[in-house]
Amino acid sequence: MAGIMSRIIYLNGELTASNAARIDVDDRGFLFGDGVYEAIRVIDGAFVEGPPHMERLALGMEGVELSADAASIVSELTDAAGRVLESNDLMSGDALVYMQVTRGAAPRTHQFPTGGVRPTTYVSATRFAPPSAMQERGASAITHPDLRWRRCDLKTVNLLPNVLAKQPPHAAGAAEALLVRDGVVTEGSHTNVFAVLRGVVRTHPCTNDILPGITRANVLRLARTEGLRVDERPILVAELMEADEVFITGTTTDVMPVTWIDGRPAGSGEPGPIARMLLEKYLTDISGSRSVVATIPV
Amino acid sequence: MAGIMSRIIYLNGELTASNAARIDVDDRGFLFGDGVYEAIRVIDGAFVEGPPHMERLALGMEGVELSADAASIVSELTDAAGRVLESNDLMSGDALVYMQVTRGAAPRTHQFPTGGVRPTTYVSATRFAPPSAMQERGASAITHPDLRWRRCDLKTVNLLPNVLAKQPPHAAGAAEALLVRDGVVTEGSHTNVFAVLRGVVRTHPCTNDILPGITRANVLRLARTEGLRVDERPILVAELMEADEVFITGTTTDVMPVTWIDGRPAGSGEPGPIARMLLEKYLTDISGSRSVVATIPV
Repeated sequence: MAGIMSRIIYLNGELTASNAARIDVDDRGFLFGDGVYEAIRVIDGAFVEGPPHMERLALGMEGVELSADAASIVSELTDAAGRVLESNDLMSGDALVYMQVTRGAAPRTHQFPTGGVRPTTYVSATRFAPPSAMQERGASAITHPDLRWRRCDLKTVNLLPNVLAKQPPHAAGAAEALLVRDGVVTEGSHTNVFAVLRGVVRTHPCTNDILPGITRANVLRLARTEGLRVDERPILVAELMEADEVFITGTTTDVMPVTWIDGRPAGSGEPGPIARMLLEKYLTDISGSRSVVATIPV
Repeated sequence: MAGIMSRIIYLNGELTASNAARIDVDDRGFLFGDGVYEAIRVIDGAFVEGPPHMERLALGMEGVELSADAASIVSELTDAAGRVLESNDLMSGDALVYMQVTRGAAPRTHQFPTGGVRPTTYVSATRFAPPSAMQERGASAITHPDLRWRRCDLKTVNLLPNVLAKQPPHAAGAAEALLVRDGVVTEGSHTNVFAVLRGVVRTHPCTNDILPGITRANVLRLARTEGLRVDERPILVAELMEADEVFITGTTTDVMPVTWIDGRPAGSGEPGPIARMLLEKYLTDISGSRSVVATIPV
């Protein structure tokens, strides 16, 4: 646990110090990656886009048949997030809430456990530093084969392919892996990918092969509002290097210009005007779109 | 934890009661499914096919770059298995050892943690009842889309696709899901799949799309020894229903005749002569192939 500061976390109904909290060795999160999660930006104690995040978490639980009562888990985790933020003095400034639900602890069998096993519910929160400097200068990325399963629309903790895709760019000092399946850029290892091609803002459509990003949806909406032409159609990897601009979006990324791909300049090699405009609109937007977190005194 | 009897397990260097042992909430096994595992049959305190299992575990660790010193982890887990078997009175009769290694506990980032984070090492053991009755009468199976990632050759704990594939047959009273990718039967949710077609024993070749099963390799060897024609070539799903025999293989399955697929009889609808012969040879074989587990007094 070297390098992990203890903090107050929420686990199965209780607030506790993270270095005292422990997961059962029979937890299906640990044995199968049998769980779903969300990461949510928090500004001054309020969720950024809380309802769509919690709705996606509920859809994820339903998608993997994790709970017959996703709504009550969503409610539990929403309350817990407020308590964790308060307990860690994160009610002002930027923070990030992490929530995870697994199918609980049970004797190891591939099929679902029977007998009313309680899902494991976990919430933590940390201080968050928005990536302003990198947004200013642009990020590097590396293309990487998309080896993931065919339900990337579910935000599950089966993330080893994402881990293995993120490591090479990280080791090379780059910010993200751009995943390529069948000649098409699907998304990043933890972001959605956009390109501006002949003035049109392009991104992969919402299929089983990408996560329906909440920042992605907001950026598409803002682009349309600004009168830009938008096309949810796969970007060929060959098109990526001819694009006027490339950018990635995500909860911890906002809108991030990508100025360098596989060691070559992308677009002009500088953050492009459309990415910069969408970033500015997005940052203004999330300041106004915060949903109030239920803050229960602890 | 309802329904889980406490037992002695090994975790990070120590033997402890399973209901007292706990995984760190920051463990990358829990957050990313970032780990590999093995399940090994044990007969009278000795591993069945210990060396190939431990070799596969080492290859898995190398495949996901989990440790720079896979050999010392293999040695640690081998010793631990002996201690866990002894502590649970499993040195006689049939048992199953489960081993898992994760990339350890570290602040959550997709890329690998830095700073010498110690991998998490876990071993448990349970009594095992060989599935003799089902081998005698044959098993039912259901075909299911193979939605898994493209490194199924690695035995990782990213098992949610396998969990979701196993649930429908389980709910229908069937024993296994036969996974179909691009019209081809790759393998089962936790077994390898064989068919006998015009007298030839067929199974998917060892590619990135299947686990190189240790029972699979043994059954192929036994089939060749018995003078059978063997072909490691994908089985088309259309061929499955025309096969003389279908069977599955695995550590907890041995050789299991499949006599019913998608609600229709497979082959003759009874366990076939080749599957029965290979099961018999296999059971004789594993009685003789046991490797001694290092049993360190506790």
